[in-house]
Amino acid sequence: MTATESTEEVELQKLYTDFATEHLNPLWTQLGDLMPQQPNPKAVPHVWRWDVLYPLAQRAGDLVPVGRGGERRAIALANPGLGGAPYASPTLWAAIQYLGPKEVAPEHRHSQNAFRFVVEGEGVWTVVNGDPVAMRRGDFLLTPGWNFHGHHNETDEPMAWIDGLDIPFVHYTDTSFFEFGSEQVTDPATPRISRSERLWAHPGLRPLSGLDDLPNSPIAAYRWEHTDAALREQLLLEDEGQPATVEPGHAAVRYTNPTTGGDVMSTIRAEFHRLRAGAWTRPRREVGSSVWQVFEGDGEVVIDGREQRIAKGDLFVVPSWAKWSLRSDDGFDLFRFSDQPIFERLNQSRVFVEEGEE
Amino acid sequence: MTATESTEEVELQKLYTDFATEHLNPLWTQLGDLMPQQPNPKAVPHVWRWDVLYPLAQRAGDLVPVGRGGERRAIALANPGLGGAPYASPTLWAAIQYLGPKEVAPEHRHSQNAFRFVVEGEGVWTVVNGDPVAMRRGDFLLTPGWNFHGHHNETDEPMAWIDGLDIPFVHYTDTSFFEFGSEQVTDPATPRISRSERLWAHPGLRPLSGLDDLPNSPIAAYRWEHTDAALREQLLLEDEGQPATVEPGHAAVRYTNPTTGGDVMSTIRAEFHRLRAGAWTRPRREVGSSVWQVFEGDGEVVIDGREQRIAKGDLFVVPSWAKWSLRSDDGFDLFRFSDQPIFERLNQSRVFVEEGEE
Amino acid sequence: MTATESTEEVELQKLYTDFATEHLNPLWTQLGDLMPQQPNPKAVPHVWRWDVLYPLAQRAGDLVPVGRGGERRAIALANPGLGGAPYASPTLWAAIQYLGPKEVAPEHRHSQNAFRFVVEGEGVWTVVNGDPVAMRRGDFLLTPGWNFHGHHNETDEPMAWIDGLDIPFVHYTDTSFFEFGSEQVTDPATPRISRSERLWAHPGLRPLSGLDDLPNSPIAAYRWEHTDAALREQLLLEDEGQPATVEPGHAAVRYTNPTTGGDVMSTIRAEFHRLRAGAWTRPRREVGSSVWQVFEGDGEVVIDGREQRIAKGDLFVVPSWAKWSLRSDDGFDLFRFSDQPIFERLNQSRVFVEEGEE
Amino acid sequence: MTATESTEEVELQKLYTDFATEHLNPLWTQLGDLMPQQPNPKAVPHVWRWDVLYPLAQRAGDLVPVGRGGERRAIALANPGLGGAPYASPTLWAAIQYLGPKEVAPEHRHSQNAFRFVVEGEGVWTVVNGDPVAMRRGDFLLTPGWNFHGHHNETDEPMAWIDGLDIPFVHYTDTSFFEFGSEQVTDPATPRISRSERLWAHPGLRPLSGLDDLPNSPIAAYRWEHTDAALREQLLLEDEGQPATVEPGHAAVRYTNPTTGGDVMSTIRAEFHRLRAGAWTRPRREVGSSVWQVFEGDGEVVIDGREQRIAKGDLFVVPSWAKWSLRSDDGFDLFRFSDQPIFERLNQSRVFVEEGEE
Repeated sequence: MTATESTEEVELQKLYTDFATEHLNPLWTQLGDLMPQQPNPKAVPHVWRWDVLYPLAQRAGDLVPVGRGGERRAIALANPGLGGAPYASPTLWAAIQYLGPKEVAPEHRHSQNAFRFVVEGEGVWTVVNGDPVAMRRGDFLLTPGWNFHGHHNETDEPMAWIDGLDIPFVHYTDTSFFEFGSEQVTDPATPRISRSERLWAHPGLRPLSGLDDLPNSPIAAYRWEHTDAALREQLLLEDEGQPATVEPGHAAVRYTNPTTGGDVMSTIRAEFHRLRAGAWTRPRREVGSSVWQVFEGDGEVVIDGREQRIAKGDLFVVPSWAKWSLRSDDGFDLFRFSDQPIFERLNQSRVFVEEGEE
Repeated sequence: MTATESTEEVELQKLYTDFATEHLNPLWTQLGDLMPQQPNPKAVPHVWRWDVLYPLAQRAGDLVPVGRGGERRAIALANPGLGGAPYASPTLWAAIQYLGPKEVAPEHRHSQNAFRFVVEGEGVWTVVNGDPVAMRRGDFLLTPGWNFHGHHNETDEPMAWIDGLDIPFVHYTDTSFFEFGSEQVTDPATPRISRSERLWAHPGLRPLSGLDDLPNSPIAAYRWEHTDAALREQLLLEDEGQPATVEPGHAAVRYTNPTTGGDVMSTIRAEFHRLRAGAWTRPRREVGSSVWQVFEGDGEVVIDGREQRIAKGDLFVVPSWAKWSLRSDDGFDLFRFSDQPIFERLNQSRVFVEEGEE
Repeated sequence: MTATESTEEVELQKLYTDFATEHLNPLWTQLGDLMPQQPNPKAVPHVWRWDVLYPLAQRAGDLVPVGRGGERRAIALANPGLGGAPYASPTLWAAIQYLGPKEVAPEHRHSQNAFRFVVEGEGVWTVVNGDPVAMRRGDFLLTPGWNFHGHHNETDEPMAWIDGLDIPFVHYTDTSFFEFGSEQVTDPATPRISRSERLWAHPGLRPLSGLDDLPNSPIAAYRWEHTDAALREQLLLEDEGQPATVEPGHAAVRYTNPTTGGDVMSTIRAEFHRLRAGAWTRPRREVGSSVWQVFEGDGEVVIDGREQRIAKGDLFVVPSWAKWSLRSDDGFDLFRFSDQPIFERLNQSRVFVEEGEE
Repeated sequence: MTATESTEEVELQKLYTDFATEHLNPLWTQLGDLMPQQPNPKAVPHVWRWDVLYPLAQRAGDLVPVGRGGERRAIALANPGLGGAPYASPTLWAAIQYLGPKEVAPEHRHSQNAFRFVVEGEGVWTVVNGDPVAMRRGDFLLTPGWNFHGHHNETDEPMAWIDGLDIPFVHYTDTSFFEFGSEQVTDPATPRISRSERLWAHPGLRPLSGLDDLPNSPIAAYRWEHTDAALREQLLLEDEGQPATVEPGHAAVRYTNPTTGGDVMSTIRAEFHRLRAGAWTRPRREVGSSVWQVFEGDGEVVIDGREQRIAKGDLFVVPSWAKWSLRSDDGFDLFRFSDQPIFERLNQSRVFVEEGEE
């Protein structure tokens, strides 16, 4: 090193120190990390097993009360790449929630969008803005932002389900509002279907009392019998040679807001996928992350080249731009949710589908 | 009259003659007629009786063949104010269509939007772009513009229903395209529900193979059991003190396009209204016209102060800005269609609702 | 004719008579006229000459006062195919309006959308909702529905311009509302530009006091210097090998609503076209009708095969689906307005462009 | 502590350990931090002084080359609350960029949206997708995502400006794509205005060659003379008693996309604000963060109760939900950008404006 080089190096170090003192940070030293050539998520693909999750939730049921303050007995998936934070991905929160016999989770509301999906059990009602909504296997239930909600278990059995929210996104963007509500649910009734369904869940029909478009779906519960029927019909139509499925042997529906035809909530997309025995999905990459839960059957998921067997109740996360595909053994039903609406609305969406035969 | 006045009068007459020669027409002589202070329709309110219509359709069934050229045995409501044209209003065409035992109405397509509503009978399938759609009492069936369609009666009984189209609007605006298709229906199958329903008529669920928004609803048939259930629930919710109805005792649904939440077709709105025994609707005026058919029950319609009793199958037209209200005797079910989407999309919509108690 | 045939014929005539009595009209006897295979307008192509129009307007200026009741000294183009009605086409009204020295056309408002385009002269202010808007050659001025407006001529010279409205469409669809206003203009000031322009006519800039989207443009006047500059730049960019023009030698702009980027008014599209010396436009057909006025230069218009020479001030109408093209001699500037927004919003739009070389 | 309590405590610790092992994280121990009752940003309000920034940039100009790899001599504001990351807020990146005499910053493109705003100087052209765009004091210049761009300084003087991007948001959400381009700018021409302006920057006029709506504005440069004129007119209109300003003495414009009337880019809003001498803005809180730069004049900003004097070139950041207001001494011009479009599009927007007099 010459004297000049040395002087320059000293000057440069002095400059960087002055930057730090003045709360400045140069771009040129870190461009590749800040603006990678393609998404380079810290979040990693990971599988959580239902037969591990559920017993842990049971133990929490024995040891941790549910009530005001803690609010919910919810145990979140913490992506191994995200340093222990309770985030399945940078945008999505996913948890198993467990409610013991006769327990009540008190009412509150928050700006975060939330849903529940039930992989097994029944007997809990979630009360959304005063509307009691029964929870049963296969149902997808909404609690869009700023709706009061609480849960109560009417049975002598515990019940567990998964919760999905946009907590990490809202936390990162500093848009959280939260308010406590009633300690008991505001309507203890236990009807088979909710008022929201009675008003809104009729195919293609809209009440004249509900003509204003809503940012989130007014349907509180999407019932399994409808989802199942829709998927079954797609596969039957495929058998008849009609266009209906996404790709051969792969039926899928998106849950939608009937006032717009769009996603159920502004930040979360939810879908249900069914693969015939032996079917597989064409490998794809998408901007944004998603969380899946096996509802029935078993098979394999391949993420960025790593294959894993998955079965009923198992959850896995697909980070942004990871290449994923699914394979079914004897038939495979999976629930999925993702942050896609964020990226579609912000013109950041990209999808890559691998061409060619298996 | 002075000589000057006389000269001026002569000059003026000469001017008007020259206008006419040059294909010109002054505004000042006709302003009030051209631009009235409020809508002053030539169309008049009128009631057509089902017990008159149906026998006439039967006679046409005996005397007039259905087939290529004439295409349809459809008998249109001709508003008495519109000089004999087959127009229920300046925008809407409404007809009774009659198909004898085993008859076939050949396939064709046109830019005009069309639907059918069934007040009684069954046994006909309408085949829409190759998809056979059964027609049964209470069903509302779509044939949006430029879809091939034909009908065939599979029974030994005749069947009649009403057709609604935007023929007058399309004719006036010179936007008609028409093309003949197959003389026989392209799919003679007689399934209970159509493929379009199997794919699309699941509440709040959208096939992933159908993510592009469509200008018209992809649901070919809105079945009576869903319409009936939606209306019944609205009245039950009202009984429970919940917001659900349009006004006391008045339940109503709009048929919608599930890809947008909007009207089923770009020029035609369709709704179904149910009034409890003794209920009435608040008098209202709306820009645009509508045609109603009584589906069940009886009661009265009051249009611009004139009250008429109406019963099952009767049709009536409400011209633009006429004041209308309905009263139910022992319960009243009515189907309605209108040209409202035209005026909403063109920013010409106005509604006036009369305040105060009956 | 056999006896049976004869009986049937009698029966059929009886049926048709009964239809008429009951205000019914069969489809099968008139299908081809009602639903033609392609648009078959009654309106015909026609050219009105400015050197005929203007002297007639002058004579009206001498003989007919302008004032309350008649409201406007406007002489409408009456399409020769439309039976003498003051309609350029079934949807569009176009007129020459003439205001003598110091004359005032009183204020009123109506649901009809209106604009003015100035082919020559200046010295009149149109006062739109209290905002005085100067009128000068080349300017395009808006009076969207339900804005009060009046005109006053501040000079000792008469001034004439063209008016465009959706009067026929509004009349046909029974959506006219009209209200008289002040007999004198509500603001007699004569500023060079209007307040609306000062607030809104800055490229790409929107006032924070105006963040709600509006159905019609808030810009009261689109000034010639901007239109001219935009067209000039398109041709210069074309010279530089850049994409800018519609087709070789054919520059064009659409006047838009800055709050949406869409058409200036809900029922009327307005554009300005410039053809280089020797340029021509590819023949095209469009659903819907349009009216053109030559602003500068001369050339030929060919409509459905008939060629006519046109020059400054001449107006012509192109009916729905007629094939038209323009040819420029030494440069050609034309203003155009049409009913296209109606058909685009109602999903009835179709365009056909002829391929191949001249 | 009893034996039972002690056992339970041990069990609980064991449970938490097992959670960690299984990559799980309970909600109940951290609810308040994860879902605060109102936004509780780590980012803090902060002011960066131009007279500190600019000399540091000069020193970087002497010591750090600009070229392939580092790409840009840009020095980012590092919010003191964000641990040294080069983030003005969780979503926004803001930097001073410095280009020495005759220097060239090579071309590249990225999914991040970018703009530049010039507080002083001129002589640099930014070449956006091959279109050379001159940069001058007061201009606001766009480089929406995935447009190639490079800069070159044609003068013998250095030039500095500010860059704004959505780097933190894109980084957090794993949606970054980046591609290197030409080392020299692809068009070295130095026109006074860009081709994009010649095609698009005419008030209310849209080229017929550009009728497809675009997610980002096609206007590459919003020139100071237009911004200045728009603000000046708002204050003059206010003087005349007309509605024009946001609040008394406070004029403001938003830069918009002329194809939609919406924000210039999908994730970034940009505005310019002018306060009369002595004027102040009503205190407000908004979800989302913003960065301001003083363009001219001086005054005070109060953020969450802390008042600071600011002058030409100074930059400051307002975190989510912080209460801010501005006060002008002798007139105050400020540029602002924010992440508001993200929250408006995702239905997360909230605004609180303090009522009452100063």
